[in-house]
Amino acid sequence: MAPLLLFNRKRGELMNNPNIADRLKSQLQFLLEADKLKSIERVTILSDKSRRESTAEHSWHIALIAMTLYEYAAVDNIDLNHAIHMLLVHDLVEIYAGDTPAFGLTGHETKEAREQEAADELFAILPEEQGAEYRSLWEEFEAAETPAARYAVAVDQLQPLLINHMTDGHTWVKQSVSVEQVYKRMEPVKVELPTIWPFVEDVIQKSLKKGFLR
Amino acid sequence: MAPLLLFNRKRGELMNNPNIADRLKSQLQFLLEADKLKSIERVTILSDKSRRESTAEHSWHIALIAMTLYEYAAVDNIDLNHAIHMLLVHDLVEIYAGDTPAFGLTGHETKEAREQEAADELFAILPEEQGAEYRSLWEEFEAAETPAARYAVAVDQLQPLLINHMTDGHTWVKQSVSVEQVYKRMEPVKVELPTIWPFVEDVIQKSLKKGFLR
Repeated sequence: MAPLLLFNRKRGELMNNPNIADRLKSQLQFLLEADKLKSIERVTILSDKSRRESTAEHSWHIALIAMTLYEYAAVDNIDLNHAIHMLLVHDLVEIYAGDTPAFGLTGHETKEAREQEAADELFAILPEEQGAEYRSLWEEFEAAETPAARYAVAVDQLQPLLINHMTDGHTWVKQSVSVEQVYKRMEPVKVELPTIWPFVEDVIQKSLKKGFLR
Repeated sequence: MAPLLLFNRKRGELMNNPNIADRLKSQLQFLLEADKLKSIERVTILSDKSRRESTAEHSWHIALIAMTLYEYAAVDNIDLNHAIHMLLVHDLVEIYAGDTPAFGLTGHETKEAREQEAADELFAILPEEQGAEYRSLWEEFEAAETPAARYAVAVDQLQPLLINHMTDGHTWVKQSVSVEQVYKRMEPVKVELPTIWPFVEDVIQKSLKKGFLR
């Protein structure tokens, strides 16, 4: 049976099971749907260059980065765990909206509308108040106004630079990215993680010198 | 240049950079090394059956499951965020020790020694007190004695059952797993997430009936 048909049949089995409470059914269905984030491919590749990175892998990596570099956050007493919750949830909309690469030439005009629609569909699977909670984590991240959200955004931008550092600027070369574009993209890192900035500048300048950035 | 050589050269560049403090260098090196968890393959496949799941993806999924099903934890007031920290970190040892499938026939006698050795190597990359903190998260998870660790372990066992439910028992069929083995493996779910148990039993019984379990 084709994977999607199998997936839908299995979801049907779960939803029709009279022995499981509706609330739990919704939550399990959401967690099964979330599995699809592992099939969303980013432009970034793994550091061993074996394949493209999935958005699920990216989400795990940024949560670990947020934990590990927390001491460098420019703002004191940021709620790290709230930032981690945002990082674990904020890319789920890509299950329906797909990944829109930061330096890609297409998709940016429609990104917000596509992701809003995706959020409507995805978070509605959950029980109402839990769906609202997850949606609010996503919206807080997107607005990037609270200290925890600004920290989370900085970590989310830093991660692809780490990978580009390890892969001879793979996504930069592929998308013919300029130094100015990367500096602009890294602005949140400069503000929220100033101690990391010398490393970021060094990567950018060396990548320019080696022709990985134009 | 071969990926591993490139990786080592880039790591060398970072470690020799005089403009970055040693502490930050260690942390960045750890985060680059952590990227390799995306190349560790589990027996589990993605629900679209396109490829095997990476341990990094599994780590993200279980953190999301821990958040989503927290209300069903049998013990009140478990520290959810501590459980999430454990879930994000506990499989990192697989970077050196590899994944040891729960129902695989080999590797179990040597698993503990291999993972201890991996932990020695991996957590030593970090600044001493941070390495000790991460190692202690891993050890707490492995010991499965604190309420947060027991909850984390239950979530970690539940996740592959969710995937087996979606993929016609892929790993069970592949490894010729018996109903008794799955019941034993799911014991922490029964104890720590009793509300989920009817769903688990239903998946097991239907899988037996369909021949996905023996």
